[in-house]
This record gives sequence, structure tokens and C-alpha cells, in this order.
Amino acid sequence: MEEARGSAGNPDTIAALARAFGKRELSPVEVVRVLLERIGEDETNAFVTVTGDRALGEAERAEREMAAGRHRGPLHGVPVALKDLICTRGVRTTMGSAFFEGHVPDRDAVIVENLGEAGAVIVGKTNTHEFAYGTTGDRSHFGPTRNPRDLARITGGSSGGSGAAVAAGLAYGSLGSDTGGSIRIPAALCGAVGMKPTFGRVSKRGVFPLAWTLDHVGPLARTVEDNAFLLAALAGHDRHDPYSAARGPEDFARDLGRGIRGGTVGVPVGFYYERLEVEVGARVAQAAEVFRDLGANVREVEVSHLHETLDAQRLVLAAEAYAVHEERFLGEPEKFDEEVRERVEAGARPRAHEYANAQRAKLRSLHAFSRAFEEVDVLLTPTVPIPATLIGQREANVGGTDVPVRAELNRLTGPTNLNGLPSLSVPCGYTRTGLPVGMQLIGPAFGEATLYRYGHAYENAQSILG
Amino acid sequence: MEEARGSAGNPDTIAALARAFGKRELSPVEVVRVLLERIGEDETNAFVTVTGDRALGEAERAEREMAAGRHRGPLHGVPVALKDLICTRGVRTTMGSAFFEGHVPDRDAVIVENLGEAGAVIVGKTNTHEFAYGTTGDRSHFGPTRNPRDLARITGGSSGGSGAAVAAGLAYGSLGSDTGGSIRIPAALCGAVGMKPTFGRVSKRGVFPLAWTLDHVGPLARTVEDNAFLLAALAGHDRHDPYSAARGPEDFARDLGRGIRGGTVGVPVGFYYERLEVEVGARVAQAAEVFRDLGANVREVEVSHLHETLDAQRLVLAAEAYAVHEERFLGEPEKFDEEVRERVEAGARPRAHEYANAQRAKLRSLHAFSRAFEEVDVLLTPTVPIPATLIGQREANVGGTDVPVRAELNRLTGPTNLNGLPSLSVPCGYTRTGLPVGMQLIGPAFGEATLYRYGHAYENAQSILG
Repeated sequence: MEEARGSAGNPDTIAALARAFGKRELSPVEVVRVLLERIGEDETNAFVTVTGDRALGEAERAEREMAAGRHRGPLHGVPVALKDLICTRGVRTTMGSAFFEGHVPDRDAVIVENLGEAGAVIVGKTNTHEFAYGTTGDRSHFGPTRNPRDLARITGGSSGGSGAAVAAGLAYGSLGSDTGGSIRIPAALCGAVGMKPTFGRVSKRGVFPLAWTLDHVGPLARTVEDNAFLLAALAGHDRHDPYSAARGPEDFARDLGRGIRGGTVGVPVGFYYERLEVEVGARVAQAAEVFRDLGANVREVEVSHLHETLDAQRLVLAAEAYAVHEERFLGEPEKFDEEVRERVEAGARPRAHEYANAQRAKLRSLHAFSRAFEEVDVLLTPTVPIPATLIGQREANVGGTDVPVRAELNRLTGPTNLNGLPSLSVPCGYTRTGLPVGMQLIGPAFGEATLYRYGHAYENAQSILG
Repeated sequence: MEEARGSAGNPDTIAALARAFGKRELSPVEVVRVLLERIGEDETNAFVTVTGDRALGEAERAEREMAAGRHRGPLHGVPVALKDLICTRGVRTTMGSAFFEGHVPDRDAVIVENLGEAGAVIVGKTNTHEFAYGTTGDRSHFGPTRNPRDLARITGGSSGGSGAAVAAGLAYGSLGSDTGGSIRIPAALCGAVGMKPTFGRVSKRGVFPLAWTLDHVGPLARTVEDNAFLLAALAGHDRHDPYSAARGPEDFARDLGRGIRGGTVGVPVGFYYERLEVEVGARVAQAAEVFRDLGANVREVEVSHLHETLDAQRLVLAAEAYAVHEERFLGEPEKFDEEVRERVEAGARPRAHEYANAQRAKLRSLHAFSRAFEEVDVLLTPTVPIPATLIGQREANVGGTDVPVRAELNRLTGPTNLNGLPSLSVPCGYTRTGLPVGMQLIGPAFGEATLYRYGHAYENAQSILG
């Protein structure tokens, strides 16, 4: 991968790209051409639709603006990919499903407009687990996505194409959606930085839902800083999205250089550290050491109600997904992928009072995390308890115990979908066999800037060390 | 009633009482003694527990403070009654149920502390429909409450005792709770002013729940101004109540004198004006004329999704009430009143995805009302489509159609329990047989001061005219 980028002459990061554009060393059109070539050779099945002409057109516009001295910011002229459940005007948007195989929206999602205003160039629509309803990324009407590190293995899902595209150097950033971990899981398994922002931080208008009260949209990128640039373009109040929070725009990269000396990293023992693949546990433990070396206090902290939180997240997801898909399920059940259909069907079973109780569990969970954040700045956990499994594999053995892969993949990411807290997955090394491992940093509501600061400090230390 | 008050020499209103206290024409202890005497002769069954000694003690304290020149505000020394699902330290709190017949809480609800700080004197705990789970007020473990206007008739519920206590002159104000209309219905049927404030405006900590996301606590009083005094004492952020809104205290009486000239009253035709008892419709139409005479514009306005809103409110209520009572229902079903037990049981049936859809309906409802409030200041509707029915009566005939009394009573109040908008019931005359009729004023979120201003203007005009 590094070689591929090197040989193409493109910088690795959005930050470097922006500098190169600033110095006129490189032009947006050149960069897009290189990416389109790579995408043409892609073996990860990251893209459902490549918007080559549109991308070249946008890159030319960016180039003209730059030539005229107009600079829109760090995303100006930067190629970005969109998960294929984010609506794009005039560009097919499939949800990874046969139902929407030929669906062409007549409007852009709000976040697509946002990216356009920031000057980003849309290179294509990335493959998604069908209707985003799966953690593996290997069940899409357009075939499984494949891990750039090992094509026999999953990317994780549901934003598998967005994870692969960024990790394989096919785009500088990508957008995903995350209802139980769908941004963070592929970020962790592919080796990218994935942010699930605070619930309400990013507009979801024009993004196909999986579960309204759990869905989050957010960016994937190669570095923490790049991720922060992307979120800055996406974040902001949308008064026409009923789930949007009344928060203005924010410069999430503002504190990146401040370091973390004197800060406190909480290690929530119990739930998050049970039943981990040994190497995953070891990489996260090493990350804790890096935080300590950087001058942060690292201490154990209790976060209660986590099993209840995860159970509630799963019940709410099942119920809302059934509500979203009921008509399709009753009308044309055969059009669903078999695994997805089974999950949709199961969502008709829970009772309303269980959903009501799950909403109470959400309040208890928020309270439990709030107490932890009185003592620590961020929580450090693994993102996914296991590295990428094989495509189609549904059981894995962790420390002598057989575990169901699909549920295992989002076991540690699901809780903050219920309570809405921001959660950032940052690569923290590899297994002996070269599979990426991710750590998850969780913060208080609207504390994304803090997560980025910790993630950036860690990343910096790693690149200096290694 | 008027005679009773006159002969006792007590003023009619909190405002007048406060003036009398200020001039030392009357003492809190004297006032409490008169009320305790009246309560002793009460035939409405308004009280489950009378806290005579506590009231006299508090009145003495208020008197000492006044003698020392300390004046806590308009509620200082004012006798108030609490619905018997509001916890009172050391004072039995029964929820109108056999389950809690001898239950003595060890803490006061936050709103009881609030009233204490405002100097109010608690005279007792008022009867409630069992667990607040009924609109009629005639099913309590402690017997039905009776309408002061006609003892054979219901007060409406569930805060029936609080409605009767205020209307019969047994307290100057009372607190109720409202999940589908339980403050506004007894206010309308007994002839009192009842406010369901905006969801989150008043702390519910220490108030026994019926349905967490629909429950509101609020005041009943004889006049709009008195009601505003009470709400001012209750309102405020409680960071330990997860449903509490981050809004500071507010002086709800501040705008009462400003009048409504140039303002706009919306008449939401359709849903709210269908199937009304003729005299109810006539009284509300006359109220609209009064608003016009006072210089307001009165115009028809569309509010959409109301049937859906009411259905969703009912489903959420059933589901959450089942969640609240499941353990009791499975353990000792026979301890419930039969009607209440049937309702609890029915709450186990709805599915989780229906609840999820109901939450979507809530968002649509908020949107529909928001659009109306771009055009009008308040909405005018009847509070209850029929006057007080007979105790035990479960069918009524409205314009030739038989209607189920229980569902009919909260048909017009239920929608704003789902969307949380403030709703004030103000007496607007009587039927030929002397039964009170109430109109409902609905405002935008946190627009209580506006509702009070309109209600006060109307009330003033009425007392001048009549």
C-alpha cells in the first residue's frame, strides 16, 4: 500500500495533500486521475459506483478556484468516497440492496452538500453490508468487501467499502454510518481512523436509516488529523433533521497540538476487557503505555450497566430496523439477503414495553458514563475484540471459547450507539500475521475535539517511535 | 361554593390571600384552620390523607417569618394540596392503590421541597385514580372522587382529588400529574385552572411514574394568576431528573397584564372540534369571541397528524405503564382495581417497532405544531369534549353517537402529552345544568407565560362582563 502511494507520487494524507495543493506542487485533477486508476485495479470491491466524470469535473473546478486564489480549506480538491446509503443527486444509491439496485436520488444528502462546500471531490459510492444491517461487510447485493491487508478476510461492516477505500489508498477520506459500530469496526479491521461522533452532531437528512435513534454518520480517514478535517466539514445543526443537535460548527483540529500531559485516560475494566483475542488485548495495553509515556495518567475506572446497555442497543436496533423495513419485508422478503432477512424478521418480536425499558437503560448508561467522565478525560478500550475473520466465517475461537463472529464484532462498539457518546477508533498496531488492531477512545457528549487530541498524540508518538 | 368561601372570610385567590397576609389582615394559621374545618366536612372525597398538624406547624412558621418581616413571595403561608403520588417524607403516599396503602416515603419529591422554599403550607394528599391510570377519577383504592358541582358526577382524573380540592375551596392550589390529560381533565370538569407545563419544565424526581416520557407535573388553582404563581415555584432544572430540561426559573406572571391585543389565536379545526357535546362547543366558540373582543386575531389553522399523535400517545402510555407495573402485575394482579388491571395487561401486547414508530409520530407531531406556531401565538380548543359524567358511567351519547367515556375524556388532551407542548385548561362557563366547561390553550415549547397571558386576559374579561 505504502509503495503504491509512493510510486504514484501522491501524498499520504489530506494534510499533506492540502500543503502540496497550496504550493502548486500537485493539482486536484492529477490526484483524482491517479486514484481513478487505482480504483480501476481495486481488488477489495470497495466501490459500488465510481463517479469518475463527476470527480474530474469537481477536481477541475477546484483547480480553477485555486488558480484564482480561492482556498476553501483543508478538504479543497480532496477526493472522498461516500457509503452507498448516502443519497447523491443523479448518482445511483443502492443501500447495498437489490431493492435499490437502480435507485437514483434527486437530492444530495445534507452532508454531501457540506462536503461540496468544503471543496471535496466525490470519487464514488462505497459498498455496504446490505442496508447497513451487518457487522461483517460480506453480505451486499454487490458482493463482499475484502480487507486490503488480506483479500480473503472481511473489512468488517457495515461501512466496509469506506474502510477499504481509505486503507487501500483509493480515497483520502470516506463517510460511513454507524448504528452498532459500522464506522469503527471497518476502521479497526482495515487500519483506518474512524469517528462515530456524538448523536446529533452530523445531519442524517438524506442518509438511509437503519435505526433512527442509534444511527450516526461520520468520517474515516488515514490519520486523526484528516478525520478531524472531515468532521469539521460535516458537523453542524440541521433544523430539518429532528435528531440534529443545536450545536454550531467546530474546528476539531484546533487542539491537536496541545498534547495530553496531565490528562487522564480511563481504562474501563470488566466488560470492555473480557474475552479479547490475546494480541488485541496486548496492543491496547501497549497503547495505554504510550499514553502514560506522553504524560497522561492512566487509571482503571468503573463504568456500570454495560451489559444492559448493549442488550438495550440490540433491542432498539432490531425494533427500529423492523419498523424501517416492515413494508419491504412483508412485500418482497425474497429480495433481502438471507442473513439480513432473518435479522429483519427477528425485529418484529420484541414488545413495546421492552423498548420502553431499553430507553430507561439508555438514561442509566448515560449516567454511568457521565460519572466516569467526572474522573477521566477519555476512556480507552479495544474497538473490536478480534482481528478480521475470513469472509463468510461465522464462528471464531477466542481463548478456547467459540464466539459468534457477527455479535462479537460490535460487542464493544454498540454501547455508545445507545447512549450517543462520541467514539473514535485509532489503529494501534498489527497482529503477528499483519492484521490491523484498533483502539477505541470514548468521550463525553460533544467531546470529539478531546478524542482527536488524544488520538493525535498517540499517533504522533507512534510515528516518531516506529 | 362561593358562599362557603365568603362566610369563612377567607379570600378566594392566592393573590388576594398574599395581599391580606401583607396587610396583616389575616394569618396563615387562621386560614389553615378554616380549611381544615372545611376539609373535615368535605363530601368530594378529595383527600386521602389530611396533614393537619404539619399544616398548622408550617403555617405557624410562616406566621413567625412574616412577623419578622420576611416575605417569601406569593405562596408564603398559602395552603396547597398534593396529588397522592407525589412523595412526602414521613407522610403516607398511596398512589391511590392497595399496593401502597401504608407506604411512607423517607424523602420529599423535589417539587415538595420547592413548594416548601416558597413558603407554601401542605394541607394534605389528594385522591387519585389508581396509579393515575384513568381519566375518570372514580377508581381509587380510597373510593371515587366526587365533583363539587354535583356529587353524583366524576371529577375527571386522574388528579381528581386535586381538582375537587381547589374547586371546593379546600386548598388554594394543588399539584397534579398529567400523562394523557390528568391535570387538565379534572380542571375542566371541576371548574379550575390546570396547567400541563412543557415536558421537562418541572422535576419529576419523587413522583410515582405512569409513563416516563408522557408524565408531566403541574399545578391546579382557581385563577390563571394563581396557577402562574404555583408554576413559578415548581419550574426549574433538576440535573438528577433525566427528563428535566435545562431551563432556569421563570416569572410566569410577568406578562399577565400585557393583554393580547394584536396577538393571534389559532382555532385548529378538524380533530379538536369533531364530536363535541353541543354546549361544550358553544362555550369554546364564545371564548373565541371574547379573544376577538380583546383585540386578538382569531383564525382557523391546520394542525396535521393529530389522530396519529393520539394513537401514538396511547400506545406509548400502555407500553410504559406496563413496564412500570410488570412486576406488580405478574406478582399480585388481584391487588389492582379491575379496570386498571385490564389496562395494565393490555400494555404487554404492543410490539417494540410500534413503539419505535410512535416515537417517529412524536417528531411529526412536533413539526406539525411548530408550523402552526409560526402563524399563531396559541391554539384554542375544548379541553374535554363532554361535561362531567356520572360516577361509574362508561358510555355517553354525544350528538346521537355512543362514545366510550374513558377514551373520550382524554381525546383532546392526549396529543400534547406525546409532543410535550404546554397546555392550559381555563374554565369557560357552564352547561345549562351547571356543569363546568374548560377550554384548552396550547402553546409552543416553553411558552407557558404566553398561555397564562391569554388565559388571564380571558378570565379578566369574563369577570368584568359577568
